[in-house]
Amino acid sequence: MANTTVAVIGGGPAGLAAGASAASLGSEVVIIEKLPFLGGRPIEENYASLTPYLRSAEEAMGEVIDHALSFENLTVMLDSKVIAVTGDPGDFVLEVQSGEEVVSLTAGSIIVATGFQHFDPGRETQMYGYYEFDDVIALQDLEAMLKEGRVQRPSNGEEPKRVCFVQCVGSRDRQIGNEYCSKVCCGVASKEAIEVRLAVPGVEVFIFYIDMRMYGYWESQIYWPAQEKHHVQYVKGIISEVLPKDGRLLVRGEDTTMGRPMEVLMDLVVLSVGMEPSMGTREIAGILGIEQNKYGFIEAVKGPLDTVATSREGIFAVGSALGPADLEDCSSTGGYAGARATAFIRSHAKAGI
Amino acid sequence: MANTTVAVIGGGPAGLAAGASAASLGSEVVIIEKLPFLGGRPIEENYASLTPYLRSAEEAMGEVIDHALSFENLTVMLDSKVIAVTGDPGDFVLEVQSGEEVVSLTAGSIIVATGFQHFDPGRETQMYGYYEFDDVIALQDLEAMLKEGRVQRPSNGEEPKRVCFVQCVGSRDRQIGNEYCSKVCCGVASKEAIEVRLAVPGVEVFIFYIDMRMYGYWESQIYWPAQEKHHVQYVKGIISEVLPKDGRLLVRGEDTTMGRPMEVLMDLVVLSVGMEPSMGTREIAGILGIEQNKYGFIEAVKGPLDTVATSREGIFAVGSALGPADLEDCSSTGGYAGARATAFIRSHAKAGI
Repeated sequence: MANTTVAVIGGGPAGLAAGASAASLGSEVVIIEKLPFLGGRPIEENYASLTPYLRSAEEAMGEVIDHALSFENLTVMLDSKVIAVTGDPGDFVLEVQSGEEVVSLTAGSIIVATGFQHFDPGRETQMYGYYEFDDVIALQDLEAMLKEGRVQRPSNGEEPKRVCFVQCVGSRDRQIGNEYCSKVCCGVASKEAIEVRLAVPGVEVFIFYIDMRMYGYWESQIYWPAQEKHHVQYVKGIISEVLPKDGRLLVRGEDTTMGRPMEVLMDLVVLSVGMEPSMGTREIAGILGIEQNKYGFIEAVKGPLDTVATSREGIFAVGSALGPADLEDCSSTGGYAGARATAFIRSHAKAGI
Repeated sequence: MANTTVAVIGGGPAGLAAGASAASLGSEVVIIEKLPFLGGRPIEENYASLTPYLRSAEEAMGEVIDHALSFENLTVMLDSKVIAVTGDPGDFVLEVQSGEEVVSLTAGSIIVATGFQHFDPGRETQMYGYYEFDDVIALQDLEAMLKEGRVQRPSNGEEPKRVCFVQCVGSRDRQIGNEYCSKVCCGVASKEAIEVRLAVPGVEVFIFYIDMRMYGYWESQIYWPAQEKHHVQYVKGIISEVLPKDGRLLVRGEDTTMGRPMEVLMDLVVLSVGMEPSMGTREIAGILGIEQNKYGFIEAVKGPLDTVATSREGIFAVGSALGPADLEDCSSTGGYAGARATAFIRSHAKAGI
């Protein structure tokens, strides 16, 4: 008898959407998550709120998790990691390290939802002092602070008077090998800038950017309110280094609009780090034998009109396992892949293979 | 007995993806298209090629159409327009004007794929002379020219020596009421700029932009090659008007990087017009009684983690009916909505309503 199970590897926003979609169509679904909880990066990294509506990440992801778990034909394996896959499309066999034991499960189709990791701003050519100076933090560090309801300088616990965001850290950068744009950092930084303005009375907030990539509705939903209502100050410029000075941080670069060198003192510097494929994404690509692009993300081999197909029949990829993705992308590709995996299993069964 | 038909209104990239997805899952599908052919804007407006891979629009859309038509349980009504909808979720009745006659059909669920139209650059405050000067054209006019294998000045049939693109025409503009960014115009203009450089030896090509919104892979797939390989010249600036001068076009504005007024002579000016909801999108929203946002697009009422739900149960929306969308968005939301409509019909049937 044909195997009617869809194995979803990864329980973040895209994996949960994929699992719920496949389950809603009658497939047996197993979501395999390496962490002891569902929700992906927004939960793992303690995001305060989601872009663009500043809705509580815990609440919004909670609803997504509850929806997935509402299907009787969907089960979840936590603390679990796929370590080997054999068999063929329609009849895969997954070896899963689940806690202490290794279990074997079969699946007709596989959905890869292993996501991204944040670029490590201490790497190589980065002159921002992320590991040297306490008050240089990254987008996700500020998220975690905002979730705790505080915005402080890690060095002394004081509220900052001047905060800046440095865009494109680890993105659009040939030297480090990430030529792509990470898509969401302009929106996330602007959202966090608004939250900092709301949290700290009188704080000045600057965003140093190359292009503000507030595509679609983000322009009117975040970018305009950030400027007009919350008085976030956007400066087109390129930051080359961050240095300590008089207990504060000296941010050096070039104001490209004014065409002159720039040196400004800040209390808190937030690096808008980009997306790279997670270790899980790199590993599973090798295990499954599916094509990756030069950056290590899973290649969507069929191009823009078929967003979730990988190089192997019966295996689909979703969300930021495919490359930089916003939450809408995760929802849509996840939901689509649930349909594709289900249809694949049924056509395979019908063909009597 | 429960109605197992999904009615898809619109046969462009998103509607075809939705139809194929629902059909692959066993739903009966009817795609209702107002034009005498399938394919949507890329075919209707004679796009030469698709972003980002410069693949022939006719060939790529041909494959999408063939795939949809390969399902025996999918039928297409051309020259057809939904004029009234009654009934309830699970049991809708659609009145369709099909050619000369009005036919009635029932559907358990409806997917709205009625898309966008290009902003009319002759409207109101636009000082670009689109209707006054032959050599001022829009993105889709250049597409049609490129499809015919020529790049000419409409005024005299000569090849242009200098071509410029003016970004954000009808987007990011409060005065005309379109505060949103249209998402794809930076990518499309850059793609066309490359094609102009390839078609006309020695032509100079400029793009006047506010921010280049080359999100995700478009940065490395289009933006970098446009600059480095094809020598397209990007100038951060705002164009205020276009005037005739000595048989050419005088483009006036401000070079915001250099901080000075700018006047340049061009042979061909291409307006990067944005997206507005199509008439079909505006009309169907009223007919179905589903919420629209202030711009007239269909409101995705559930937010970024549920991209295709509308304000009415059993009715889903996809692609650029929801707002500015690229082809990936059309594929993903279309495919997802096919799943949602199918699952809705089945759960409705199971509930025995």
